[in-house]
Amino acid sequence: MTTDVPELRIDRDRLVGRLNELGEIGRIEGTIGCARLALTDDDKAGRDLVLTWMKDLGLDISIDHIGNVIATMPHEAAAAPVMAGSHIDTVATGGRYDGNLGVLAGLEAIETVLTAGIALERPLAVGWFTDEEGARFAPDMLGSLVYVGGMPIEEALGIEDADGVAVGDELVRIGYDGPAPCPGPAPHAYVELHIEQGPVLDDEGITIGVVEGVQGISWTGLTLRGQSCHAGTTPLRMRHDPGVVAARICGFVRDLAVEMGGAQVSTVGVMTFEPNLVNVVPEAVTMTIDLRNTDESRLQQAEARLRAFVAETAEAEGVEIESRTLARFEPVDFDPRVVDMVEASASAQGWSSRRLPSGAGHDAQMLARVCPTAMVFVPSVNGISHNVTEFTEAVDVEAGANVLLRTLLQLTGTEF
Amino acid sequence: MTTDVPELRIDRDRLVGRLNELGEIGRIEGTIGCARLALTDDDKAGRDLVLTWMKDLGLDISIDHIGNVIATMPHEAAAAPVMAGSHIDTVATGGRYDGNLGVLAGLEAIETVLTAGIALERPLAVGWFTDEEGARFAPDMLGSLVYVGGMPIEEALGIEDADGVAVGDELVRIGYDGPAPCPGPAPHAYVELHIEQGPVLDDEGITIGVVEGVQGISWTGLTLRGQSCHAGTTPLRMRHDPGVVAARICGFVRDLAVEMGGAQVSTVGVMTFEPNLVNVVPEAVTMTIDLRNTDESRLQQAEARLRAFVAETAEAEGVEIESRTLARFEPVDFDPRVVDMVEASASAQGWSSRRLPSGAGHDAQMLARVCPTAMVFVPSVNGISHNVTEFTEAVDVEAGANVLLRTLLQLTGTEF
Repeated sequence: MTTDVPELRIDRDRLVGRLNELGEIGRIEGTIGCARLALTDDDKAGRDLVLTWMKDLGLDISIDHIGNVIATMPHEAAAAPVMAGSHIDTVATGGRYDGNLGVLAGLEAIETVLTAGIALERPLAVGWFTDEEGARFAPDMLGSLVYVGGMPIEEALGIEDADGVAVGDELVRIGYDGPAPCPGPAPHAYVELHIEQGPVLDDEGITIGVVEGVQGISWTGLTLRGQSCHAGTTPLRMRHDPGVVAARICGFVRDLAVEMGGAQVSTVGVMTFEPNLVNVVPEAVTMTIDLRNTDESRLQQAEARLRAFVAETAEAEGVEIESRTLARFEPVDFDPRVVDMVEASASAQGWSSRRLPSGAGHDAQMLARVCPTAMVFVPSVNGISHNVTEFTEAVDVEAGANVLLRTLLQLTGTEF
Repeated sequence: MTTDVPELRIDRDRLVGRLNELGEIGRIEGTIGCARLALTDDDKAGRDLVLTWMKDLGLDISIDHIGNVIATMPHEAAAAPVMAGSHIDTVATGGRYDGNLGVLAGLEAIETVLTAGIALERPLAVGWFTDEEGARFAPDMLGSLVYVGGMPIEEALGIEDADGVAVGDELVRIGYDGPAPCPGPAPHAYVELHIEQGPVLDDEGITIGVVEGVQGISWTGLTLRGQSCHAGTTPLRMRHDPGVVAARICGFVRDLAVEMGGAQVSTVGVMTFEPNLVNVVPEAVTMTIDLRNTDESRLQQAEARLRAFVAETAEAEGVEIESRTLARFEPVDFDPRVVDMVEASASAQGWSSRRLPSGAGHDAQMLARVCPTAMVFVPSVNGISHNVTEFTEAVDVEAGANVLLRTLLQLTGTEF
């Protein structure tokens, strides 16, 4: 299945230089972080800069109705390209690596191949997808969702931000309402390099994360209603305390995840007591439970056990429960053949690697619907992301880009 | 120890009429609740009304430096009076029974005795104490604290409300900076009739609560600091989640109180997560723990077990703990002889009764420092107090006032 791959290496200084140059746009004063919310003036400025670099390499540019930009090496064959990509929008307190690395490393891979003058069986392409962060327009991963046909373009263009400004109007305003249709053509394969945004690689001193898939996510919002009463004058047997129920649920989901082991994680991130006074038993508590697993059947098992525990604990305390599903995504498995190639590329270049799931969502999970897909992770120092202190060492940026390059090259010679 | 007691009965309509007339002052529109925060214009109006009633009965009036008002039956002997009393200030969303009942029932007892023309071995007195609620000036029970010498008058007069207005200035402004010295003279005995402000009597269908003492209170504030991280990308083993620790503490204190049984109660009323986002492990949690018991040694035992659990649970999760004592009061035991008299009076009048502790603070706990003291509780409908819907049935108001009257009469003939 695999072919011999030319032993090319990317130019680290050029890649890091571009990351930093792009990171200056929307830079947050006094930090290395930046803010380029989707379809703002700063996002436009970032787009314009990267587009200039793409054009300077003589790539064929496609801009589609949702503002996704895909640059493809000119090629004699009408073959579907092997695509790299990610996003260049950021959250309001973002870093310069999240998303940007995947786009600029893809561009770097293409420039490296062009400079080497190597002929490929099919072209390479690099793209960025609109509004991956979802920090301005919900849902996140909007551009890649539309690209793969997961949402009609008309619906996407009508999505409004908190101020009532629509995606479609902003695309026109910044000049990125392109002519290419949505959904877009399926690539031959897709590989996304991204910072881990978690602590595992940094903690274990491993350079390359071989991403096997994206965790499934189950978000539950609970409102627990009991009876407010005086902490001194009300005997325990007469209480209906939603705080105690909420606390037991919070302890339970941790114990559940530990007991289930493997990829199961659980988090209670929101807990709000009303009226939140020292000597008053709360009247109501709102809380959220975030369950994630790479295995859909085990995620369903966790959800079922949570439901049973909530029902039983609330009934024992005489507390009313209102439950809402806030988000639910099934796990995504990347293509095992592409995952194997990523791992083999890391090994061939002498990098330590480990397999791991992605705990966060990425454009790659959308592309996985239409073509063989995988991801490459590099360490986030201290696991920090979505924060102005987000940082990845240049040596890891270089390693990740070289693993990406090798995997892309291998994919050009691979038929599925 | 006890003597024969004349079988007098108070006038229910007069007592309920006065409760309602006083409740019109500061009344909260559209409700039967009222707001007469200490030393406001409305408090002055309430004071003036009750003072008029006292003067109309020909009682000797004493107003002291902290604004406590004590009215005593004229009497040939220079004997210390048997005193009834409570307070007439309310919280911002108060009812017309809390405090007011004890004062007006004491006044009613005196009027009943005067009308009957009965000679007593020592006089009866009725008083109200300034700022019992503490809703405007901290601490609560300020007037009775100063009356028994628990705080120097100079210190009390300097206490300021949230707007920087001092107790002393407000007393002058409303004309209740009286000439009587603080601390005041110890009564022969003190009995306070009060609504339960809890659900026990109402729930059990019992008319008279024989109050054995006031629970000791231990308030602990905890700040738990962990490490904020992404709910998807951070494995459980790498988490330092203060929310899980806080939840386990909340569950523990409930289990502890149930296991200890008796009068032990526990409440977690405050729980605040930061940043309180669904997919972010909290960085910090603030919470409070309210422990109460009528037995000081058992309260200390509960505190020690809480401390041990907090330390051990926080260490296991790698979470930092900052602990503060927010309040700490030892339990108060009322005089068993007076408690017995209350119980016997209820029985003699054919009322159901049960012994119980007070879960809230009352002026009686201050008077207990200087004289034999007890309290009489009557039911609060649904246990509701500090709320505009606070209500006690007229039949229970009458029963409580008659038990108070009989106990006061018995105390006039009792030497300690």
